[in-house]
Amino acid sequence: MSKVARIELTPVAFADPPLLNVVGVHEPYALRTIVQVWTDDGLVGLGETYASDDHLLRLKAVADVLPGLDVFDLNGLRRRVRDVLISAGAQVGGMLNLQDPVDVVLSPYEVALLDLQGKLLDRPVVDLLGGAVRDEVPFSAYLFYKWGAHPGGEADAWGEALDPDGIVRQARKMIDEYGFTAIKLKGGVFPPGQEAEAVHALAKAFPEHMLRIDPNCAWTVETSVRVARELTGVLEYLEDPTPGIDAMAAVARQTELPLATNMCVIAFAHLKPAVLADAVQVVLSDHHYWGGLRRSQLLAGICDTFGTGLSMHSNSHLGISLAAMTHLAAATPNLTYACDTHYPWKTEDVVKPGVLAFESGSVRVPRGPGLGVELDVDALGALHEQYLACGIRKRDDTTYMRTIDPGFSPNTARW
Amino acid sequence: MSKVARIELTPVAFADPPLLNVVGVHEPYALRTIVQVWTDDGLVGLGETYASDDHLLRLKAVADVLPGLDVFDLNGLRRRVRDVLISAGAQVGGMLNLQDPVDVVLSPYEVALLDLQGKLLDRPVVDLLGGAVRDEVPFSAYLFYKWGAHPGGEADAWGEALDPDGIVRQARKMIDEYGFTAIKLKGGVFPPGQEAEAVHALAKAFPEHMLRIDPNCAWTVETSVRVARELTGVLEYLEDPTPGIDAMAAVARQTELPLATNMCVIAFAHLKPAVLADAVQVVLSDHHYWGGLRRSQLLAGICDTFGTGLSMHSNSHLGISLAAMTHLAAATPNLTYACDTHYPWKTEDVVKPGVLAFESGSVRVPRGPGLGVELDVDALGALHEQYLACGIRKRDDTTYMRTIDPGFSPNTARW
Repeated sequence: MSKVARIELTPVAFADPPLLNVVGVHEPYALRTIVQVWTDDGLVGLGETYASDDHLLRLKAVADVLPGLDVFDLNGLRRRVRDVLISAGAQVGGMLNLQDPVDVVLSPYEVALLDLQGKLLDRPVVDLLGGAVRDEVPFSAYLFYKWGAHPGGEADAWGEALDPDGIVRQARKMIDEYGFTAIKLKGGVFPPGQEAEAVHALAKAFPEHMLRIDPNCAWTVETSVRVARELTGVLEYLEDPTPGIDAMAAVARQTELPLATNMCVIAFAHLKPAVLADAVQVVLSDHHYWGGLRRSQLLAGICDTFGTGLSMHSNSHLGISLAAMTHLAAATPNLTYACDTHYPWKTEDVVKPGVLAFESGSVRVPRGPGLGVELDVDALGALHEQYLACGIRKRDDTTYMRTIDPGFSPNTARW
Repeated sequence: MSKVARIELTPVAFADPPLLNVVGVHEPYALRTIVQVWTDDGLVGLGETYASDDHLLRLKAVADVLPGLDVFDLNGLRRRVRDVLISAGAQVGGMLNLQDPVDVVLSPYEVALLDLQGKLLDRPVVDLLGGAVRDEVPFSAYLFYKWGAHPGGEADAWGEALDPDGIVRQARKMIDEYGFTAIKLKGGVFPPGQEAEAVHALAKAFPEHMLRIDPNCAWTVETSVRVARELTGVLEYLEDPTPGIDAMAAVARQTELPLATNMCVIAFAHLKPAVLADAVQVVLSDHHYWGGLRRSQLLAGICDTFGTGLSMHSNSHLGISLAAMTHLAAATPNLTYACDTHYPWKTEDVVKPGVLAFESGSVRVPRGPGLGVELDVDALGALHEQYLACGIRKRDDTTYMRTIDPGFSPNTARW
């Protein structure tokens, strides 16, 4: 019996380009918490999650009650997390609302326990999830409107992208370097006509690629329907054009284009209302808020059972998350869309290089035990120092945007 | 890497009392197939399933393609089963219609692979399913109207039960011996008034016990509503009063009594229509047709997500199935009802005694590696001889009943 002995939580900050979105612009650093779970027999399991102050407090409260937990006791993990959060009266806030706080806080620990189980078994995590249905997991080129540099900062390698030409240029560079065969454009930044124009430009430049746009609920129902009709046959799906299950259902009734979401269905409690309203055709899973890998498999099974498509969402993340996403995706038969990832946008990491590589847009499933990635303790230390120095304690794209454009307000349902 | 090397399928027959139901009466022998999966490193994993000729043919076709399969590759198992069944154009028939043949044929192999995984890890199967949320799994006293003996046969230990007094007497004996705290009466044998009378007699004799009745769709919608209203506050749920999702939904709209089913929701394809119609409040899982233990966990997660209760169904079975049911139930937080089992009705088994015992109506989760039960090869041989000698090749309660009552026809929707 291998039991949890000790937990180390390390908040880190890594450089992030000025990527524009509906609520503002990415700050110069993105935050993550690196979770290390040590067993009484000296093994370490890894997890990665958000790093807002609130979230860190909850992670710490949970860490205090985990010693003694059997590494196979995922039900026991859930019970302990629930007990801690109930006694703390916790609610998870942040950019994504109404999530299940138990699933969000539990996730990095569940991943770390699965990493440990794999190490105990000398098997990759994908085997614990039912075995690989694919050895390589396709990801998408995740394009952003962006500035050439943070204000007062140095230009990044990607350059400016504020119009269709800039977006096509960015796509070209990303596809040249990574080989992606699907493209997602983060929208909600410019009026819908301009963003649809960018989609058409991408379709012209990459006629063989699958395309998506995600305006993050920047549009009204009427605009969503109009743009959906314009882009039917061009996009594989339209992601979160408008806020809420009811509004999404209203759009869905008026278009043939599949609608996807990682905004109105982000917890198990949202699935029944979404199914009853027939609101979405594709759910974007994300193990960071769907309660880890096993619960994400439950989501996948629900999508399969109820005839809903399945894709995968990404926030800014590091290599531990990419490894976990890859194991999960490899074991999920009905995950038939290329997964989102912010991976190309980062220049720093906490895992030793060499395991996670993109070839033809796909990541090969790590074959080492557990997640198959190893922590680089020097890099971890450096990114923790960066966290301490940068002063950012929670993601806030809006406040950062207002330091540059004081009149800015989020574009939600603006157009 | 531990891989499947060889598979042994052994059909067995075990003595079964003359238990009455909606389609007739249990024959003198019940059939099961015992599945042994051997790995290249000499371990054996156990599974148990149905044994009709059709099912045996499909099991054998699948057995032929399993050598070489990694014991952790449950997705690969599914793929191989599906490929074999598609190429064979197979449809599973029998008493339960419209099941998913892949899930039915896959089930005993999945259980055997989990047994092997546990043995490789030196861990009980419950650990592979997320860990025990309970160490003892409650089962229900499964009462039947019955004759005192098969025609021409010797009287069994249970005696006749053809009226409320007989049912109460049977309950008393079963509860004295096993300690059950919940009672299920198999109905659909006599007119509903008589069976409701038996329920009232049970409620009077066992005021602390949870009660259920299962007429196996013997009633019309109108009768179901009337009896449901009469038994509200007496039963914890009413199981399958009437056939089909639409009719069950019609009943549900007219009563507060929760409706349960193992007849109109018996495959993943039935879940969406049942949810949309709000047809049932409790689904009875059964890993033998829900695709094994992991898929049964998916069913449990779906029930949890969509606000549906979860109980567990049983056909006549032996110890391998009881062990698998117990591991599954122990790892399923929202399985809050006592599980059904036919176990008390049998007098023969294929597993070595000592592991599976009922105390206060519950079975303690086996703590040995894998399922924790071991095959008794002499008993297996004897029950296989019995299979060869008995001549029964598929369950057919109706034809057997007609040898005694030539005018008998099933009572489905009769009253």
